[in-house]
Amino acid sequence: MDAMESTRKRGGSAAWRRTSVLANHLSAQTHEDATLSLERIPCLAYNPPETASVKGLIDVVAMRQLMDGHDVDLRDEVYNLMANEKLFQLKKVGGQVYVGPDYNEPFQLQRYHTMQRIYFLRDKGLFKGELTDDSFERAFRKLAIHDCLAIFDHSLGIKLGVHFQLWGGAVKYLGTQRHHDRWLQDTEDYVVKGCFAMTELGHGSNVRGIETVATYDPSTKEFIICTPCESAQKYWIGGAAEHATHVVVFSQLHINGKNEGVHAFIAQIRDEQGRNCSGVRIVDCGHKIGLNGVDNGRIWFDNVRVPQENLLNSVSDVTPEGHYVSSISDPDHRFGAFLAPLTAGRVTISVSGIYQSKLGLATAIRYALTRRAFSLSPNEPEVLLLDYPSHQRRLLPLLAKTYVMSCAANDLKKIYVKRTPSDSKIIHVLSSSYKAMFTWHNIRTLQECREACGGQGLKTDNKIGQLKAEFDVQLTFEGDNNVLMQQVSKALIAEYLTSKKKGKPLKGLGLEHINGPPPVLSSDAGFSLRDKNFQIALFHLRERDLLQRLAQRVTQLTSKGSSTTDALVLSHQLAEDLGWAFTERAILEIFLSVEKEAAGPNKDILALLRSLFVLVLLDEEPVFLRYEYLSPQQSRAIQEEISKLCSEIRPYSLALVDSFGFPSSFLGPIASDWIEANSWKNV
Amino acid sequence: MDAMESTRKRGGSAAWRRTSVLANHLSAQTHEDATLSLERIPCLAYNPPETASVKGLIDVVAMRQLMDGHDVDLRDEVYNLMANEKLFQLKKVGGQVYVGPDYNEPFQLQRYHTMQRIYFLRDKGLFKGELTDDSFERAFRKLAIHDCLAIFDHSLGIKLGVHFQLWGGAVKYLGTQRHHDRWLQDTEDYVVKGCFAMTELGHGSNVRGIETVATYDPSTKEFIICTPCESAQKYWIGGAAEHATHVVVFSQLHINGKNEGVHAFIAQIRDEQGRNCSGVRIVDCGHKIGLNGVDNGRIWFDNVRVPQENLLNSVSDVTPEGHYVSSISDPDHRFGAFLAPLTAGRVTISVSGIYQSKLGLATAIRYALTRRAFSLSPNEPEVLLLDYPSHQRRLLPLLAKTYVMSCAANDLKKIYVKRTPSDSKIIHVLSSSYKAMFTWHNIRTLQECREACGGQGLKTDNKIGQLKAEFDVQLTFEGDNNVLMQQVSKALIAEYLTSKKKGKPLKGLGLEHINGPPPVLSSDAGFSLRDKNFQIALFHLRERDLLQRLAQRVTQLTSKGSSTTDALVLSHQLAEDLGWAFTERAILEIFLSVEKEAAGPNKDILALLRSLFVLVLLDEEPVFLRYEYLSPQQSRAIQEEISKLCSEIRPYSLALVDSFGFPSSFLGPIASDWIEANSWKNV
Repeated sequence: MDAMESTRKRGGSAAWRRTSVLANHLSAQTHEDATLSLERIPCLAYNPPETASVKGLIDVVAMRQLMDGHDVDLRDEVYNLMANEKLFQLKKVGGQVYVGPDYNEPFQLQRYHTMQRIYFLRDKGLFKGELTDDSFERAFRKLAIHDCLAIFDHSLGIKLGVHFQLWGGAVKYLGTQRHHDRWLQDTEDYVVKGCFAMTELGHGSNVRGIETVATYDPSTKEFIICTPCESAQKYWIGGAAEHATHVVVFSQLHINGKNEGVHAFIAQIRDEQGRNCSGVRIVDCGHKIGLNGVDNGRIWFDNVRVPQENLLNSVSDVTPEGHYVSSISDPDHRFGAFLAPLTAGRVTISVSGIYQSKLGLATAIRYALTRRAFSLSPNEPEVLLLDYPSHQRRLLPLLAKTYVMSCAANDLKKIYVKRTPSDSKIIHVLSSSYKAMFTWHNIRTLQECREACGGQGLKTDNKIGQLKAEFDVQLTFEGDNNVLMQQVSKALIAEYLTSKKKGKPLKGLGLEHINGPPPVLSSDAGFSLRDKNFQIALFHLRERDLLQRLAQRVTQLTSKGSSTTDALVLSHQLAEDLGWAFTERAILEIFLSVEKEAAGPNKDILALLRSLFVLVLLDEEPVFLRYEYLSPQQSRAIQEEISKLCSEIRPYSLALVDSFGFPSSFLGPIASDWIEANSWKNV
Repeated sequence: MDAMESTRKRGGSAAWRRTSVLANHLSAQTHEDATLSLERIPCLAYNPPETASVKGLIDVVAMRQLMDGHDVDLRDEVYNLMANEKLFQLKKVGGQVYVGPDYNEPFQLQRYHTMQRIYFLRDKGLFKGELTDDSFERAFRKLAIHDCLAIFDHSLGIKLGVHFQLWGGAVKYLGTQRHHDRWLQDTEDYVVKGCFAMTELGHGSNVRGIETVATYDPSTKEFIICTPCESAQKYWIGGAAEHATHVVVFSQLHINGKNEGVHAFIAQIRDEQGRNCSGVRIVDCGHKIGLNGVDNGRIWFDNVRVPQENLLNSVSDVTPEGHYVSSISDPDHRFGAFLAPLTAGRVTISVSGIYQSKLGLATAIRYALTRRAFSLSPNEPEVLLLDYPSHQRRLLPLLAKTYVMSCAANDLKKIYVKRTPSDSKIIHVLSSSYKAMFTWHNIRTLQECREACGGQGLKTDNKIGQLKAEFDVQLTFEGDNNVLMQQVSKALIAEYLTSKKKGKPLKGLGLEHINGPPPVLSSDAGFSLRDKNFQIALFHLRERDLLQRLAQRVTQLTSKGSSTTDALVLSHQLAEDLGWAFTERAILEIFLSVEKEAAGPNKDILALLRSLFVLVLLDEEPVFLRYEYLSPQQSRAIQEEISKLCSEIRPYSLALVDSFGFPSSFLGPIASDWIEANSWKNV
């Protein structure tokens, strides 16, 4: 054993290892160079994606403005803030910083770091005015900040979302002045840490069925909150397992021998020292496939007494004497009002799902512009992944969909921020349908992106694969996607049947097109599949036809004695098709108006993306052929057109993902020089 | 502060917490019972799935024999072995043991425990004869054992697969007697630990492009293995980061100034003390989204010298004097022979993908038979998830597909174990197409199952969600699924064009049906969508038509000067459709023969499953309407029929997942009494 070997045994440093191995390499080469140099093939080199792209074809600044919608500079500031702070840095490779949490940490550590990051951001003033400044400007700023923080890590986004949107939102929108005065500023400052206890072990989507009971005791002017059985334990309560001090707890309100339905109450669950309050039992939900930086917990209430003023009373109240009063007499409407904080959640989730798709696509497309595989003929260089038509077909339609959905998400944000009471129906329907469609789109996009990156997609450093696990929860929380889509078609059918019954034209939800005659689709040989009038007419035709089919089916079943609910349950396939038809038509209309306002080359590329979006839906969804909105011949022509569109969009692909505005530190090594990042000198 | 509080401050035990809280609860109740009892709703109770199922409708023992195919008793022994050993136990909840690794452990610990489990299993004699006993019986036993171990954890399966199938398989099938004598017994005994270094940073699927070089030095009768550049570093090498002592390294063989292409060599990388051998640099691949129990590493070779006899020489050899000799003169065929160990891998992966789908479905279906959500009318009990037609439509088609694919996987196993050289083409095509189809099916199935279980699907204890991350790797390793599917259609088109050219009928790969006249589909009003003749005729029609369309397209393009490779690249949509058409026809034919041999009620339920499998494909894949194999009218009728089939299969669903034979300890708490498992007394 030589000196080197004994140094190694003593546990040599990385620097030592590099030096010794290089020395080894050099000394070996001296006497073999003659043999080795004979056949040396030229080594693979990394060429940046820019070298495989045409520059200046689109206006990236304007496109980014379109994608982010608002507060572009603020976003850059927030990204920079994180990239320059150690708490957010995962590692440095060859001078490049990569941000991100360390997903190899046990959940206990991930939670700790998430909380530390929140304190850091609070101290930087990021949450100032979040609940107490009601200007539109602040509302948009808040959304921009949350967009960026969730790009760092979903746990960070959710931990903040629970505290500000669910707890803070419930206090603000379900509470009244007394609650605002008492809680909002303290929430902004993290003097109190809030959580939101709606879901139980036995009831998730069906909130109306929750079993927790709050009984009013007029003798002490208190509500007694009780978990009457194991299935009533509050479950998945973010923040409950470790950090939260207060909770908005949803319970059946029992008063004067009557159940008045679900109401929301504030209760304290931990004291200043972090000890459980009396009568509150809490258990950790444990390890999850993602979101391990969020401390989800289970809570049991053992007749916990809270003062009468802790009822969040914007909708209904209990007088100190024990009389129940409500401004909304219909129990169904009253129940709906209590779910309002979830709507804000769905708006944010829709937006955040799309941002994650962007992250996945930015990574996979940059990689596909630098990674080669297989030569088409011997001795030719290997082909760039994105030059394969099949690889274009995998990624570019997802890019087109992401562009369209991104514009729709921004539109929904605007409606939400500037909402008036008359917008509540459209916000409910759009936030439900977008949340379902965009989050499913996100998971499918991330899956395709991960596969398109091969094994590299599985390294957590490269983000994409891990994002799937982190964002999977979006498909079922704050409304299971399938249930939400059913609610959309339920709302549509109600709208339609009411208008029929009243003999009045449809108004709202974008259904006005149904009042006119059915669209006539051109059957000219010369017509273009890229014609926007053809495209929107086809979507109108589908929505109208499916709505009528579903209405007919429901009417048939109800005339035989079924309830409308039963009839919809039995017609779930049509109802689902209708939900998609509505959503896709809605987002296409928004995109058309965005395209109209765009200028220069961006306008043209948006038109290409819009056509790809539409044609890919026509290609993938059998509904168009099943109900004969399209002929088989058209369907075959569409496949050809998709190939053409993909090859036309290919040169713009880098600029299109650059327009998402992510700093490279947020993308992971495969989006940059992955040979350099993996080289020995950077070990 | 009372005595209880001070006990709590001192850090009371879980037992104490339970007692104190119960006391609290009881004392509170004494003076409020009157109020509280007034409105108490009956609590949710857990009713086992058996109560929502009809017993005895099918013969579960016979069905399990069909599903597992072989060695049913051995499987139970292996399950029991694990369930009764602490190393495999994750936790005990209320007397029930749950097995599984702790996915909250950092990867370093997951790897350690995986290795400890392997030593335990070795000591129990499970691997005796794995490489040295060539009987069919032992080959099946081996497959059964690996099926069961991968049910415990994919890392365990892969760590064994790398050692026995890749390293051991390469030594056995690429090596000759001298290698067998030297390595096989030591491998079985884990005296050596092997790994398999094919993939490089710059080349995965395109093995032919790897850059590692082995140059023969006749003066010392050694090969000099060299990593000439960073992109040539061996990447993802399972076992390399920590445990492996030896490697089969794939390199370009340079000899006498000529590159003879990819060959495999044995090299030692660590000594008995676990230190890197001279000239070998190894770096950890780090944290991944799953498979963290496998120590993937990166390897650089700095002119490492290995003796001439370390060339695995079953196909080609280098004489001591430095002459290259090969029994296969065509370099393409020679290259193919070197990939043989991957075929075994694909067979195992196909089977294992299906077993995971079974695990997901067993869990999601048992949960759907015990979990209720929403009442259809006020004051009615909530409805069981699996009684919703939409929930049936989500899960039961996946169950039907899993049944069909399971039979096909078993069939492939048999062909593989009893293979002769003439089977190599069919094994290549089937293992490629099944691997792609079954692993995609698995990830989609697990995703749907996770969503169908709501938030519970995200808890790692409940397995399903975690399985997605653990098994995602199957989609791209040992052949990227998209590349494999392209290879399938490439093989089919070659077969077809050769038969045309030679004027001979097609023979093999199940394509004989194309030699006859095209099938005529009944257009009778009275025909049944469940008729097996209709179903298989439709699949034959599709395969024949797509093959002819693709052949026509390829011929057109090649007549204009394209190479066949280019033509296939440009026709990727048709090629992909053809790959699926081939695979679905192949597995339907196998299932029809299985159904024919079945007896009694099992035969009838298999027929229902087969019809559901076929009709769901017809419903989901637009290809049937695009090329007019089906009419829109039929397509609409198919949707109705699927609903009927689902409701007919619903009563059998529990028996169908029980037939998978998993002990409840392998399924996670939501598959059993999840209210009990979550109750306070089991905290």
